[in-house]
Amino acid sequence: VSLVLRVAYDGTDFHGFARQPGLRTVQGLLESALSEIYADTVLTRGASRTDAGVHALGQIVAFDARGSIPPAGLVRALAGALPPDVVVTAAWEQAGLVEPRFHNLGKRYRYRIRNARLRDPLRQRYEWLVPGRLDLSAMRDAAAHLVGEHDFASFRAADCQARSTVRRVTRISVECRLARLAHLPDKGALEQAPQIVEVEVEGGAFLKNMVRIVVGTLVEVGLGRRAPLDVFRARQAVDRARAGPTAPPGGLTLLEVLWPAPGGPDDGAQAAT
Amino acid sequence: VSLVLRVAYDGTDFHGFARQPGLRTVQGLLESALSEIYADTVLTRGASRTDAGVHALGQIVAFDARGSIPPAGLVRALAGALPPDVVVTAAWEQAGLVEPRFHNLGKRYRYRIRNARLRDPLRQRYEWLVPGRLDLSAMRDAAAHLVGEHDFASFRAADCQARSTVRRVTRISVECRLARLAHLPDKGALEQAPQIVEVEVEGGAFLKNMVRIVVGTLVEVGLGRRAPLDVFRARQAVDRARAGPTAPPGGLTLLEVLWPAPGGPDDGAQAAT
Repeated sequence: VSLVLRVAYDGTDFHGFARQPGLRTVQGLLESALSEIYADTVLTRGASRTDAGVHALGQIVAFDARGSIPPAGLVRALAGALPPDVVVTAAWEQAGLVEPRFHNLGKRYRYRIRNARLRDPLRQRYEWLVPGRLDLSAMRDAAAHLVGEHDFASFRAADCQARSTVRRVTRISVECRLARLAHLPDKGALEQAPQIVEVEVEGGAFLKNMVRIVVGTLVEVGLGRRAPLDVFRARQAVDRARAGPTAPPGGLTLLEVLWPAPGGPDDGAQAAT
Repeated sequence: VSLVLRVAYDGTDFHGFARQPGLRTVQGLLESALSEIYADTVLTRGASRTDAGVHALGQIVAFDARGSIPPAGLVRALAGALPPDVVVTAAWEQAGLVEPRFHNLGKRYRYRIRNARLRDPLRQRYEWLVPGRLDLSAMRDAAAHLVGEHDFASFRAADCQARSTVRRVTRISVECRLARLAHLPDKGALEQAPQIVEVEVEGGAFLKNMVRIVVGTLVEVGLGRRAPLDVFRARQAVDRARAGPTAPPGGLTLLEVLWPAPGGPDDGAQAAT
């Protein structure tokens, strides 16, 4: 039997999800807290190795069940043991040795861009500031070339270790809304009103930095620095140098790990937290 | 002639607005940046001395104009000179020696409560976590006893220096909405679904910690620990011990300093930033 946790965190002050000796990581903190609660060494397995600075609302982490703490009690105990920037929002038991990296059905990420000339200081940890009006229609046209099963070798970090670079992206959406009015100082230039642009990317698995490179490339399209069709060519080139820059980590949030229904967050086995 | 700035900041990492030698304060950083830009010592005057940890979207700060930098250029120069947790969102010139503390027509504050059992790690800097269901109707009844011109001596910090404790509160609203679903783990208990409760308080001027003590007292009412009428009695007692605890600073944001129209943010003199 495995225990499965759903975990949310503000990635700003973490050196990423994956444990690294001597560094503050989400997995490291979780394992310390769990080891203390169970008075036994607990090692965990996560669904996604989010980079330093990347946030999560629905990361999934599993470990081998032990002891007799019910899932709801574990959520409460972890709330007391973890710092305020990481919260376990649900826990449930699931048969077998659950390996979240392979057990999940996909992931959904959101990248938030503040398309404005000035930062919002209360949201700057979660937004990438991009001045200059973005052409969302061009961004959507470009994104269409990245949906489907493709070789994404152009869209991965130079040090990415994955053997296969073929991945399936099931959806990319580009939506926008006006930013709140407190940051709309110039009344005369409404077409330049600050807007929030959100890029959501859903797919099976992702290469290292893939979502951030996709967003960095789409922003180049939005700014008119490359044509939508150029993104198709960049993908076909299978060459990192042909894609755009890696967008900064703070704009990215792992919204959800898609989890098979039996024993997952949507069935009755879930702990009432 | 004065230069007037509208300033937004995340108060988490500041020792409050007001300059204090050797401490990181909003006013201190603003004065350093302005002094560097003008190559001359600049002293500023703020509308509200927000406490350590309190945020602002619409603080107002003024200083004596000098040099020939146009307001829009000043906003840009400050964007480059200030750290990401403080942003000057507008600047304009205004005749005379503007003293924002006396020139303003009032202030509008928002206090945000997360009425749930678990924190939202991506918003915890801006929310007070209050478990236990809040009775909003009782909170509104209690708030009604605090609207109007009253002696608010029961609702000020022990070390508050104000000579008169009479203040006019023009509006207190208590509104709620469901918190985002990522933090709604227990499907069986919807009446306990996480909700965000926002208390907005508008008035002329406020005593030290007044809004936070009002919120701390209203939360006691919401939790059923005191009756709405008890808040009326606490106000009449003119005794700090009769009101509730001071709510923590992170939930509070100075939304807006109400500014007279001529030369203010709503007239044509405002800089296009």
